[in-house]
Amino acid sequence: MSAQTKEQLSTSESLLADIAIKAQLADYSPVKGCMVIRPYGYAIWERIKSILDQMIKDTGHENCYFPMLVPESFLQKEAEHVEGFAPECAVVTHAGGKELTEKYVLRPTSETIINHMFAKWIESYRDLPMKLNQWANVVRWEMRTRLFMRTSEFLWQEGHTCHSTWDEAQEETLTMLGVYKTLLQDYLAVPVESGKKTESEKFAGAESTYTVEALMRDGKALQAGTSHNLSQNFAKAFGTQFTNENNQLEFAYQTSWGVSTRLIGAVVMGHHDDVGLMLPPEIAPYQVVIIPILKKNKDNSEILEASKVIEQELHALGIRTKLDNRETISQGIKFNEYEQKGVPLRLVVGARDLEQGMLELHRRDTQSKHKEIARKGIAELVAGWLKQIQTDIYNRALEFRAGHTTTVTNLEELAAALDKPGGFARCMWNGDIKLEKILKDKHKATIRCMPDETKLDSSKDPCVLSGKVSGDNTEILIARAY
Amino acid sequence: MSAQTKEQLSTSESLLADIAIKAQLADYSPVKGCMVIRPYGYAIWERIKSILDQMIKDTGHENCYFPMLVPESFLQKEAEHVEGFAPECAVVTHAGGKELTEKYVLRPTSETIINHMFAKWIESYRDLPMKLNQWANVVRWEMRTRLFMRTSEFLWQEGHTCHSTWDEAQEETLTMLGVYKTLLQDYLAVPVESGKKTESEKFAGAESTYTVEALMRDGKALQAGTSHNLSQNFAKAFGTQFTNENNQLEFAYQTSWGVSTRLIGAVVMGHHDDVGLMLPPEIAPYQVVIIPILKKNKDNSEILEASKVIEQELHALGIRTKLDNRETISQGIKFNEYEQKGVPLRLVVGARDLEQGMLELHRRDTQSKHKEIARKGIAELVAGWLKQIQTDIYNRALEFRAGHTTTVTNLEELAAALDKPGGFARCMWNGDIKLEKILKDKHKATIRCMPDETKLDSSKDPCVLSGKVSGDNTEILIARAY
Repeated sequence: MSAQTKEQLSTSESLLADIAIKAQLADYSPVKGCMVIRPYGYAIWERIKSILDQMIKDTGHENCYFPMLVPESFLQKEAEHVEGFAPECAVVTHAGGKELTEKYVLRPTSETIINHMFAKWIESYRDLPMKLNQWANVVRWEMRTRLFMRTSEFLWQEGHTCHSTWDEAQEETLTMLGVYKTLLQDYLAVPVESGKKTESEKFAGAESTYTVEALMRDGKALQAGTSHNLSQNFAKAFGTQFTNENNQLEFAYQTSWGVSTRLIGAVVMGHHDDVGLMLPPEIAPYQVVIIPILKKNKDNSEILEASKVIEQELHALGIRTKLDNRETISQGIKFNEYEQKGVPLRLVVGARDLEQGMLELHRRDTQSKHKEIARKGIAELVAGWLKQIQTDIYNRALEFRAGHTTTVTNLEELAAALDKPGGFARCMWNGDIKLEKILKDKHKATIRCMPDETKLDSSKDPCVLSGKVSGDNTEILIARAY
Repeated sequence: MSAQTKEQLSTSESLLADIAIKAQLADYSPVKGCMVIRPYGYAIWERIKSILDQMIKDTGHENCYFPMLVPESFLQKEAEHVEGFAPECAVVTHAGGKELTEKYVLRPTSETIINHMFAKWIESYRDLPMKLNQWANVVRWEMRTRLFMRTSEFLWQEGHTCHSTWDEAQEETLTMLGVYKTLLQDYLAVPVESGKKTESEKFAGAESTYTVEALMRDGKALQAGTSHNLSQNFAKAFGTQFTNENNQLEFAYQTSWGVSTRLIGAVVMGHHDDVGLMLPPEIAPYQVVIIPILKKNKDNSEILEASKVIEQELHALGIRTKLDNRETISQGIKFNEYEQKGVPLRLVVGARDLEQGMLELHRRDTQSKHKEIARKGIAELVAGWLKQIQTDIYNRALEFRAGHTTTVTNLEELAAALDKPGGFARCMWNGDIKLEKILKDKHKATIRCMPDETKLDSSKDPCVLSGKVSGDNTEILIARAY
């Protein structure tokens, strides 16, 4: 990695913290690698959670809750799994004033403890599919942490399902990948490339891992969500068997899938400008802030009353609205605060404007001021603008990604593209893991996925490593990543 | 404690587990003292959570999230607090493959870590009040655990607020006690006695603790929620200061309050009969189950279609409804399953009934079958019945409590009342802690609270301990408790 790249990384790192802390999304905590999620950041999480929770229920899953403590021996039952997670575990050795006879790890993920229960609950094919989800905190002790993107404790949902056939498990894996894609694109306004991970990048214990990869404005890719086909790996480790329709015992086929508070990081690093955060209306805790222009030491009751009526009109159309009527804080400071917080629209209510039936609107995404907006029908107008802003923010991110995706045909082009413009490098690959070693050692980059939506032609485009054209080559996306 | 009492206790203990496991609310886990909350139990928790969350927001609080790990040194900053909680703590000593230089405890409650952040965030009276809440898991390593009532890990909400005056903190403490009372009585249909705890029963670190105490059908009291006025105790320990309007530094006045998954225990032990659980409609995951009478090896499409139309009519009125159209399971088994699960109403759709425009309704609380209910207008009828069931279940619990509350005037009457009828013993008390020692040693009972709603007359009713009448005596409620 060049000195320039290191500097870029550290700039983008402080940028994330700068935006997140100014917007009061989060704060550093006294616990190593852990953050505090402040009310404004948590309100975004609640929006994301409520949208995703409904999608999870609509696809036939039920919520439940399993213990946070996992007996250390459980982790060791699946060989790849323990290798992947043991180094990151936090371990409880004492409790109730005594040393424990069996240590517990704080769940880094719950496949093991859930399989213990699956094995107890599942007897026959009639009990399948069993489709569970849990909203929980997990702990992975990370060397290098960053607000939202990588914290020692984070919040997430983890889905765990059991099926009677491999095909059904595969279908479930892809269904949930699709749910994540919809969540990111339609609500978070973050375009994603979905695809399969390579063997070396898959989840520890999975047969195959699928991912949604987003591109952040610092040119780095972000793994925003993953969905795993576990096949029978955990079922075999935990004895999760069922009697099939032919009365034979079979191991269950399983999936797991999760997204976390990292999604807030995706929003921060996906939608911002020099001023600060820029929230897509769908996940903004409030979509509009109303700021009445108040005069010091004067009677402001009329303007406050008018502002309240406007607030009610917006509420009536289901628009999430905040009226900031604090008299001790100047409007300039308020403007600045809500711009940093990325509130999509600001509605300014001034006395003179109001007399003329006018208001002032300000769009956060374009930072454009619109005077002489008619007071009449304001709620309908705002509803329309919010839809437009949602689309425009998505398209802005899409354009950014288009400008930061480069097709490369050899290692020189690859190296150049990763440095400038940065972002994704798209190429064909013969599957030789030498490439992954070169990426890691020379470029601090990885293969992000084998994308579902391909753009190249295996009969023409050569492998980036060997330079050879072959029908067996696979299209891949390479990037530096969070 | 007499042998008889011991036997009663163990009976009621197995009763709770029996009902909870048959209703598929929860299951035992492989982790000592921890349970798995299964989908049906978790759906009840989601109902309770969504009702209470709205009430918490409506009273001006914001949700947020603090780290689960608390530096061990934090706990030690408040003397009473560490004494109360240290013996129950689970301790993380290793993480990321290394021994930690400072150990962390899994939060038993979050006053300490939140105060660390309060001290950072609060500067002046303009920052106050600061009213936060978090939904989280906590760990208290208990010797003796019981499903829902007392588990080593449990889910809860904990509110934490900072104020500029003691009066405001006291008002907040009582407001949230009132919120809990409303939640329990109006939604969980569990009548409660609200009141103040004695010095020996208050929260470790609080100036005073208020409680809502419910009476379970086994005659034991349950502390269902608590609200604490912390005064300046934690603020002094953590340096949480603000500049007041006179530009002087003052320690903030604080409160904290919480309810947990124990509320599900309150529902189970508050509303059941020999058949199993009996859910109040307000918190039932589904309020009505529709069971079509299906014929083996025949075309059931007509009856299934009719059932779906009824389901839609109920949904349209906002009634949570489940249609059980499984063809492989007999109606008898279905009836039994939903009775054990406590679904308030069962609607049976039979072919012959339907021809005559009739349906069959079954009320879970009274176990009464009602034939020849008109198909027309069924949704409105069901909505009315659900309201009635909610009221009737509450009144049933209220009647039980009335029959299990005994006014006593001396220790002999007290001992007799605690054994038969059990429940609450009401009396006057001169405040001598000798009584608490007698209760503990001889009766395994405690003073549950000094109730807000008093029934006795200090000018006539004597202290249960001294036998003396005095205007300084306080009315108390005594019971054996979970």
